[in-house]
Amino acid sequence: MLNEGDLIVLLSEDSKKYLIEYKIGSKFVFHLGIVELNQDLNYGDILTTSKGYRVFVLEPSNAEIMMNVKRKTNIIYPREAGYIITHTNLKNGSRVIETGTGSGAMTIMLSRVVGESGKVYTFERRKEHYEQALENIKKVKLKNVEFYLLDPAIEGYPVNNVDCAVIDVPEPWTLVSPAYKALKSGGFWASISPTIEQVIQTVEELKNQNFLDIRTIELLEREILVRKGKTRPKETMIGHIGYITIARKI
Amino acid sequence: MLNEGDLIVLLSEDSKKYLIEYKIGSKFVFHLGIVELNQDLNYGDILTTSKGYRVFVLEPSNAEIMMNVKRKTNIIYPREAGYIITHTNLKNGSRVIETGTGSGAMTIMLSRVVGESGKVYTFERRKEHYEQALENIKKVKLKNVEFYLLDPAIEGYPVNNVDCAVIDVPEPWTLVSPAYKALKSGGFWASISPTIEQVIQTVEELKNQNFLDIRTIELLEREILVRKGKTRPKETMIGHIGYITIARKI
Amino acid sequence: MLNEGDLIVLLSEDSKKYLIEYKIGSKFVFHLGIVELNQDLNYGDILTTSKGYRVFVLEPSNAEIMMNVKRKTNIIYPREAGYIITHTNLKNGSRVIETGTGSGAMTIMLSRVVGESGKVYTFERRKEHYEQALENIKKVKLKNVEFYLLDPAIEGYPVNNVDCAVIDVPEPWTLVSPAYKALKSGGFWASISPTIEQVIQTVEELKNQNFLDIRTIELLEREILVRKGKTRPKETMIGHIGYITIARKI
Amino acid sequence: MLNEGDLIVLLSEDSKKYLIEYKIGSKFVFHLGIVELNQDLNYGDILTTSKGYRVFVLEPSNAEIMMNVKRKTNIIYPREAGYIITHTNLKNGSRVIETGTGSGAMTIMLSRVVGESGKVYTFERRKEHYEQALENIKKVKLKNVEFYLLDPAIEGYPVNNVDCAVIDVPEPWTLVSPAYKALKSGGFWASISPTIEQVIQTVEELKNQNFLDIRTIELLEREILVRKGKTRPKETMIGHIGYITIARKI
Repeated sequence: MLNEGDLIVLLSEDSKKYLIEYKIGSKFVFHLGIVELNQDLNYGDILTTSKGYRVFVLEPSNAEIMMNVKRKTNIIYPREAGYIITHTNLKNGSRVIETGTGSGAMTIMLSRVVGESGKVYTFERRKEHYEQALENIKKVKLKNVEFYLLDPAIEGYPVNNVDCAVIDVPEPWTLVSPAYKALKSGGFWASISPTIEQVIQTVEELKNQNFLDIRTIELLEREILVRKGKTRPKETMIGHIGYITIARKI
Repeated sequence: MLNEGDLIVLLSEDSKKYLIEYKIGSKFVFHLGIVELNQDLNYGDILTTSKGYRVFVLEPSNAEIMMNVKRKTNIIYPREAGYIITHTNLKNGSRVIETGTGSGAMTIMLSRVVGESGKVYTFERRKEHYEQALENIKKVKLKNVEFYLLDPAIEGYPVNNVDCAVIDVPEPWTLVSPAYKALKSGGFWASISPTIEQVIQTVEELKNQNFLDIRTIELLEREILVRKGKTRPKETMIGHIGYITIARKI
Repeated sequence: MLNEGDLIVLLSEDSKKYLIEYKIGSKFVFHLGIVELNQDLNYGDILTTSKGYRVFVLEPSNAEIMMNVKRKTNIIYPREAGYIITHTNLKNGSRVIETGTGSGAMTIMLSRVVGESGKVYTFERRKEHYEQALENIKKVKLKNVEFYLLDPAIEGYPVNNVDCAVIDVPEPWTLVSPAYKALKSGGFWASISPTIEQVIQTVEELKNQNFLDIRTIELLEREILVRKGKTRPKETMIGHIGYITIARKI
Repeated sequence: MLNEGDLIVLLSEDSKKYLIEYKIGSKFVFHLGIVELNQDLNYGDILTTSKGYRVFVLEPSNAEIMMNVKRKTNIIYPREAGYIITHTNLKNGSRVIETGTGSGAMTIMLSRVVGESGKVYTFERRKEHYEQALENIKKVKLKNVEFYLLDPAIEGYPVNNVDCAVIDVPEPWTLVSPAYKALKSGGFWASISPTIEQVIQTVEELKNQNFLDIRTIELLEREILVRKGKTRPKETMIGHIGYITIARKI
């Protein structure tokens, strides 16, 4: 049974999707009519609009939750988030530091993976982002996240022996030394940066600070429009989100 | 403290990596000499080889564990696994069906994400793969995986109301109907196939069986060789692993 | 010295480009003011707008001429055109058949490469495209192009012993047999198709009709925004134009 | 009729290709037997090996000729060559400067496009490459190429008013000023460099020297294995050749 405030995807018969917060008695208006969100709503329910169309009430995917956060910053995309998860040691039970919190999109994804036996410590130096992230994350009710309004480049991390550090700030090289101190031996560094100059400077610093097994990659995603007899890649695509650099403290 | 049978990465000073099983008293021989694996070994320990080089004992990444399984089949790569995780509803606590088990690489990754409060039901119809996967997975000590030697295309799935179905078989379209029955309303289908004809047939069947929000993508990963003054993409890259199709039961 | 009707690129100081036809005495109005195109204009001239900005009069590139044709159809892009040129035997002096003429963009490029000692025979079955192409190509004054309003799939090609066949029609497979007859032994087939089903059917037919050395590729182009300290790939890119298939008559 | 020294492709029934020089009476030995190259050989001829297999005598493609040069250096690949041709003003009749000559692969392609009414001036500072290129190009009998053993970064170009400059040297920025002097107003700069640092420095210098309309791109080529029912991209691909920078003198 859904609780007020839970996120739901409304999927219409013509495959349009809307991610909204569940409020009992609220009405959702869109091109196929109006639906009312009654008490006792559940994932999987089918509603009927005022114009007679069906609307499906669905659990959102990780990507939908991530992409839906209110943003004052760029976010790590689900594609890059997935790469970081599978190419580090992140798993149920992990303890991870994240900097900066930004809009909280990656925070949510990390929280969902490490679970209640794990912990996400997330750090943000700008007050407006910190508050936006708090608000975004309140909606998804995460119990394993600790928020810090501080700059670890200056103050260091108040935790240690963590499994992994996920870094998404404009000057990742300033966090190499603080992250080294906070990570357990063999722990993972994962940073994402849009420009190649950021990557070059970060990799230099990682080498200087005793990180090994340093690797930088970028991902390209192509959508394929699968329609019998007319199958082909989509005409437009995203050309770049950021470079991912992964390294290991030794 | 490590237990016998735990997987460890031995990382040499020249950034070569070896994934091995910890056996007390065993010796590892490689180009920088011999190291002995003593009692009371721990992630983060530093050993010295017979030739005086340092070797670091590290926790393996998810990707290293996945890529290291003994294989009689192709496996889902960490990159594609990450995409599936972040673009479905997989998280700590999820219940997921996987078909086929193959070599068990994806099984391990799924198990690590859904954690002890979740469950992976994995299905394999070929006895040799089933046995190989059992052996591979025994090494990583997963407590939340149930193995089945059966073909769900014929027998159906013996579970229901699951959150997600991860499909990696040569004829994914044969599993659309069984997966539909096993999934909860709004649950996710995620299949991976190397050929475009497999994708076309699978998408047709998904449309026929009341799946919506169907999307097919492929990922390209480029490694960037970051060396001050000489930074450039690597000369070779993997051109194709498989197409990923994600859909939602309604 | 430029003649009336010649194509010129007007490049403004802020790097905006406008491809226009030279008409003596005409005025060009844009965001930086008005420029008058006087007699005796030349490539390389610098004009001054009514607002005091400089405008450079430049020779258009091949790509600019191609992309500028008035279109009722999709065109082969310069990138794909370049690939076809370098992966066939096209050069100064070649005789090539092109089908369909479409908007004439590829016709222009082929004409520029084969030169006056070569010949482009271009075929179009739809009258409206034929007339549009004639008009487009009149502007660039090509002396080595012969236009045909006919369907070679039905009527065959009225030429033979040609070096190369460039095919851009919705059913390329219908032209395999006519092209085989028109090509010299060892001559090249180059077709471009947006969908994979077109490619599959065309390759089947090429195999059936004694073409060998058949190869299909697709090209991805990424723009890199080079700005000191902020260098990175452009955020958006074209995901797909078409698959190119090249083969050789034996 | 072929002359001694002409390049021919021998294509076997199993789609293996061999690019060789025609010498009357010579024998070619390979896995399907021996063929003798008789007098009066022609493109399109079919020979029979000592083991009874057919071999086709074909005209080489531009790409085959380019890739076949004896190399002491990296070469511009046909794919990048095609891009440069279609994105500059190169055509039949153009006058182009090329630096460095390297192994002569691009020289050959440029010569084939500009034809006998055009001219390729090619510059190389290292004697061993100059001599290798001369030898490579002798085989393909180009009449419109002038070779120079000199370093234009030091000595400047002894020609002017050229249409286009194609630059493939380790320090392209050293040629920006000399190329500016040699180019006609509106003429094109096209350079190719493997590393991003080379690109950044070159683009800076182009901006400083009054080049406009500066654009940098990279190309990715994927081969598609088209086999009915099993169509998919090839598993491996080339990840990087070089970045192409195109600009215009104003």
